[in-house]
Amino acid sequence: MKSDLDRLMKSRNLDAILVTGPAQHNPPMVYLTGGAHLTAGDLVKTVGEDAVLFFYSMERDEAANTGLKTKNLDDYKLHELLEQTGGDHLQATVLRYQRMLSDLGLTKGRIALSGKSDAGSAHAIFSGLEKALPDIEIVGELSDSILLQAMATKDEGEIERMRQMGRITTQVVGKVADFLTFHQAKNGILVNKDGAPLRVRDVKSKINLWLAERGAENPEGTIFAIGRDAGIPHSSGNPNDTLRTGETIVFDIFPCEAGGGYFFDFTRTWCLGYAPDEVQMVYEDVLDVYGKIMGELQPDTPCRMYQESACDLFEEKGHPTTKSNPQTEVGYVHGLGHGLGLHVHERPWFGRTATEEDRLSPGVVVTIEPGLYYPDRGLGIRLEDTVWVRPDRKMEVLAEYPLDLVLPIKES
Amino acid sequence: MKSDLDRLMKSRNLDAILVTGPAQHNPPMVYLTGGAHLTAGDLVKTVGEDAVLFFYSMERDEAANTGLKTKNLDDYKLHELLEQTGGDHLQATVLRYQRMLSDLGLTKGRIALSGKSDAGSAHAIFSGLEKALPDIEIVGELSDSILLQAMATKDEGEIERMRQMGRITTQVVGKVADFLTFHQAKNGILVNKDGAPLRVRDVKSKINLWLAERGAENPEGTIFAIGRDAGIPHSSGNPNDTLRTGETIVFDIFPCEAGGGYFFDFTRTWCLGYAPDEVQMVYEDVLDVYGKIMGELQPDTPCRMYQESACDLFEEKGHPTTKSNPQTEVGYVHGLGHGLGLHVHERPWFGRTATEEDRLSPGVVVTIEPGLYYPDRGLGIRLEDTVWVRPDRKMEVLAEYPLDLVLPIKES
Repeated sequence: MKSDLDRLMKSRNLDAILVTGPAQHNPPMVYLTGGAHLTAGDLVKTVGEDAVLFFYSMERDEAANTGLKTKNLDDYKLHELLEQTGGDHLQATVLRYQRMLSDLGLTKGRIALSGKSDAGSAHAIFSGLEKALPDIEIVGELSDSILLQAMATKDEGEIERMRQMGRITTQVVGKVADFLTFHQAKNGILVNKDGAPLRVRDVKSKINLWLAERGAENPEGTIFAIGRDAGIPHSSGNPNDTLRTGETIVFDIFPCEAGGGYFFDFTRTWCLGYAPDEVQMVYEDVLDVYGKIMGELQPDTPCRMYQESACDLFEEKGHPTTKSNPQTEVGYVHGLGHGLGLHVHERPWFGRTATEEDRLSPGVVVTIEPGLYYPDRGLGIRLEDTVWVRPDRKMEVLAEYPLDLVLPIKES
Repeated sequence: MKSDLDRLMKSRNLDAILVTGPAQHNPPMVYLTGGAHLTAGDLVKTVGEDAVLFFYSMERDEAANTGLKTKNLDDYKLHELLEQTGGDHLQATVLRYQRMLSDLGLTKGRIALSGKSDAGSAHAIFSGLEKALPDIEIVGELSDSILLQAMATKDEGEIERMRQMGRITTQVVGKVADFLTFHQAKNGILVNKDGAPLRVRDVKSKINLWLAERGAENPEGTIFAIGRDAGIPHSSGNPNDTLRTGETIVFDIFPCEAGGGYFFDFTRTWCLGYAPDEVQMVYEDVLDVYGKIMGELQPDTPCRMYQESACDLFEEKGHPTTKSNPQTEVGYVHGLGHGLGLHVHERPWFGRTATEEDRLSPGVVVTIEPGLYYPDRGLGIRLEDTVWVRPDRKMEVLAEYPLDLVLPIKES
């Protein structure tokens, strides 16, 4: 949680955190500013002190609305620094950072860097800064960053926002189910009143519309993949595909609050009209593993344990998994879940990058999403729900929705 | 244009371009892949060769659909590299990059880096790579990057997509105008049928809905700012504000194609019901400068020239500008425009970072957006259109829309 930051900074021997970039669709900046219409800026938090937000003058109202301590970047007079450096934009930017840090008393120490930025610019600027200030170490922490660690456990306010996103998400999933079952099938293909086939793109545009109606955004798109495509976990689905009865549809939806706030993440697998025996059997294997894992979840246990457990359960049923072959492309091919919050994927991790610290600590929100993939047999199945480990150590699914495989369809 | 890349790489003495990050909402990656549902990946283009896209196995179909040469990142066996480095994620990632580059024959030379990424991770990984491969120089180019230079001039296909975004944008602006004029004012405040005041948030949610209906996204939000807020260029508007007659509304809308494709950018200023004399006078000054600048635009001329010209024109009319005071917060306080494409703001630049190379070269698409801001007088005015410098050297406004200030409103 945010209130853990000072403690975490001390334990990592960090003197400051520097976050850069816009305050929308940029999780570390959204986390520390509360989200604001800032197209660019920097935020610096030193140990034991409140964060200071550096903003551009044109966005002074938006910056003030965050309620943070603020400083105006235009007061650092980039135009003068550019003159001083003969128009060298990189050197002028480095000089400006030097002065910003110095104004906060930061002339030495370890500074953790994060925020969404152009990789090349970030590398150039912060390498330049390290050269200019040899007593400063810029720390990049990858999947183990201090902010990801703080973000992993959510407070009540964050849970309420995620719960609301869960409501919106399952409402839209329900609308998609109604929309599909409202259509009839002709020769095994869903058609509209004019007899023209319904296509994946039609469903996706409805999804975006229904999300927008509810104030949500869908920046990363939706997976709505049928048949063979359902057998490739991250195949988003061919927009031109028709909707054929008896084939699996993996429907994975992961919208966020407008402006790049909290995400939800949810998957169901549907078969229109009926499920062939082969599909039904694979579905039941996934459902069984889903149920067993959900029943096993215990607070404070390491996430890796459940990844192992899911692999073992699938192997027992005769499916290949990443445990027996880390590069398998059939069977159970991905991680069991991931943390969820301002990123679709965040800590705690379940897969290869998981450490002993990735645990079901009270406060975390994780997805549980077992699946089986057989693209050559034209099928894929995934079921995903989002679980909050409550402070009272109980597990709570943040948005309930039936797990049914078959959506009834009339044949015309 | 993309076809200039090899020439530009040679002129900058670059051996390769390395782009990292997702293929949605990440302009360099969208530019070079054509956009795809890839949550992560890397793309490397060496001089004279086609680009190679490194993808994760789960996204192999999406990668294949780009039509690019591809390599599977899972073949580099991160799990083995993690074992080799004792679980050090950073070192394992550096090793993987080392092998990826080596597979493309890159063991020395200058590599330009770009792509949206976590600043800290990028800095750590590419500093690590430079240490591991001392003959490789990772080049970060800030606002002068080779990709921004290539992107500045658009081909016919790109223009068609931007023109379509212009159509969608002006359709939605028209719908907002209709929506507002459909309401009546009561005691100078727009109200709905029940007599409850209409608020900025109601307008913004309609905008998102109408954009979604048309297949567009609005990841950076909309500026719809009334009264004093209109006087702060990037104030996005208070969601709770009522819509008061006789006050200026700056309505700046900048949606993009779904998935983070081409943007449009468009501003009108409206006064509901009537315009007080003071507002009318300031509006006419902006309109006059807008008309003069639009009439002056000539192909191949430097953008800075028009920024100068706009300052001179405003100063002649008695308004402070950034020319007389670079930090002014009243009068004409920002750049005249900017390039537009996969970024809302890209080259050519008009403001402080503009160089001799930022010109109205045939193929560029720029916004022209003069404005005047007097927050303490409760007003701001901006007019913005998007201009394409055509290959036949004519200027074309990509989406036409009336410039009128006053929206007629009935007083009930």
